[in-house]
Amino acid sequence: MTQPFHFADALIGRVRELGHPLCVGLDPHLDRIPPLFREGGMKPGDPRSVEAVRAFVFAFIDRIEGRAAVVKPQSALFEQLGPAGAGLLAEVVERCRQRGLLVLLDAKRGDIGSSADAYARAYLEPDSPLAVEALTVNPYLGRDTLEPFVQRSRDCGRGVFVLVRTSNPGAGDLQDLEVKGAPLFLSLARSLASFEEELRGPQTGWSSLGVVVGATWPEEHQAVREALPHSLFLVPGYGAQGATAAEAVRGFTEGPSGGREGGIVNSSRGVMFPEAALSEDASTWEQAIDAALDQAASELGEAVSG
Amino acid sequence: MTQPFHFADALIGRVRELGHPLCVGLDPHLDRIPPLFREGGMKPGDPRSVEAVRAFVFAFIDRIEGRAAVVKPQSALFEQLGPAGAGLLAEVVERCRQRGLLVLLDAKRGDIGSSADAYARAYLEPDSPLAVEALTVNPYLGRDTLEPFVQRSRDCGRGVFVLVRTSNPGAGDLQDLEVKGAPLFLSLARSLASFEEELRGPQTGWSSLGVVVGATWPEEHQAVREALPHSLFLVPGYGAQGATAAEAVRGFTEGPSGGREGGIVNSSRGVMFPEAALSEDASTWEQAIDAALDQAASELGEAVSG
Repeated sequence: MTQPFHFADALIGRVRELGHPLCVGLDPHLDRIPPLFREGGMKPGDPRSVEAVRAFVFAFIDRIEGRAAVVKPQSALFEQLGPAGAGLLAEVVERCRQRGLLVLLDAKRGDIGSSADAYARAYLEPDSPLAVEALTVNPYLGRDTLEPFVQRSRDCGRGVFVLVRTSNPGAGDLQDLEVKGAPLFLSLARSLASFEEELRGPQTGWSSLGVVVGATWPEEHQAVREALPHSLFLVPGYGAQGATAAEAVRGFTEGPSGGREGGIVNSSRGVMFPEAALSEDASTWEQAIDAALDQAASELGEAVSG
Repeated sequence: MTQPFHFADALIGRVRELGHPLCVGLDPHLDRIPPLFREGGMKPGDPRSVEAVRAFVFAFIDRIEGRAAVVKPQSALFEQLGPAGAGLLAEVVERCRQRGLLVLLDAKRGDIGSSADAYARAYLEPDSPLAVEALTVNPYLGRDTLEPFVQRSRDCGRGVFVLVRTSNPGAGDLQDLEVKGAPLFLSLARSLASFEEELRGPQTGWSSLGVVVGATWPEEHQAVREALPHSLFLVPGYGAQGATAAEAVRGFTEGPSGGREGGIVNSSRGVMFPEAALSEDASTWEQAIDAALDQAASELGEAVSG
């Protein structure tokens, strides 16, 4: 009998097999699509641009197969292609599934009442046309607006990553404001504890209620980890954005076989657009991508090794 | 010579002509599509459901023509239809344009750096396949993440509505937390003052930097208005959600000809799904919708009249 799907168990199981927590960002910036995949300029409304993005992202996904547990498409970069971008995103999700990759859609959705419910249905119900394994969500509208997402996690095993502390320059404008002696992001993290507990996996104990905690603020990881000992961390900001592998995994804790675990570390630009991948020769491009992926995997593997 | 487009000027100009600030929500909940427009059950992935939503929303938009200045499609309800929903949204925007209606897309987007820029490009650049006249955005990630949207407002005259105080039960979880003696939403509103000033229209003085302030919390409108004297308010929560017309316009101020102005008041369920519109007879349905729209317009018109 197969176990029902549980995002955190599936993710951590695969991360343990691979020995590293690399999450590969799928951020197809139009102005960065390598020459190998395009002819001429790239414009959001142009069907040739959609073709170029498809060719590039598909070839990239094929390189990721066997090298990472999970990929993170950035919804904005598909939405900017218009309706064709939504179709392409569905194709990308299908391609990832064929390649054994979990898909965490970075869409940062959030709304109230029945609209939140529609977002949860759109992305977390297995029979939806755009179903993924996990979704990032925005908490500004309050705890009740997270419930439809948590409900899908409970019912369908999907993962939900709540934005807690991001890695951009202005992140602190709201997130660091002091509320009753603690920064806002920490009081938010603490308020998620019951969701976290409810969504823990039977196999690993890790929770499908995850949190986004930027790697550029390593000193804050410990505080969030204390508030949420079983939440998966999604850590952006490693590599091109500046944090080291060691900083990125600072909120991870000791796993059953000695290594550190408890989240995933995202790299987008660093692995998708390495300088050596500007070649118009396909095999040179493939080698450059493989090398960038392998280097990230190796750095992160070393950072979590016991 | 035509003036360049300026959202606040265009919106307030039209509101003055009509004499009321009604914004009509386009929230096509699948389980509420009237029998007149569907055959059998409605499922997100089913092409017949998309057809039914199209027929319903198009017929509804035709009723709104001449009765409101602006419509507010809820992105979640289109996204739940999968890639076909994005195509339908583009068709809806086009239909609204043909009917002389401004489109404010309620997508509550927000992200960092180049992703925020991609969202701004996707929805606010006039040549994008999904371009609308205005967009709702989420401020949790900080002031720098709002800048790409403000930039499009500056460059292309588009409108940006920042979530400040929403109308759901848990809205206060973060938004009301006390920060240096004031609730968070108010300190957020104050931090938007320079954006507001920068985006004021040459004709009306109103700003294309708007704010979302729920009608269920009328006592808070005055405080936000003091912080942002020229921002358009988008007030949800009128009608089906409970607030009266008088409560909904409490943050409006006296206009040049005596009436109160300074925002729009949204009604979704109340005008889209009135009880009398369950008839399978097309002209009965039309009359029911017309009556619901006219009633909302009349209530709001009375509330703002001098």
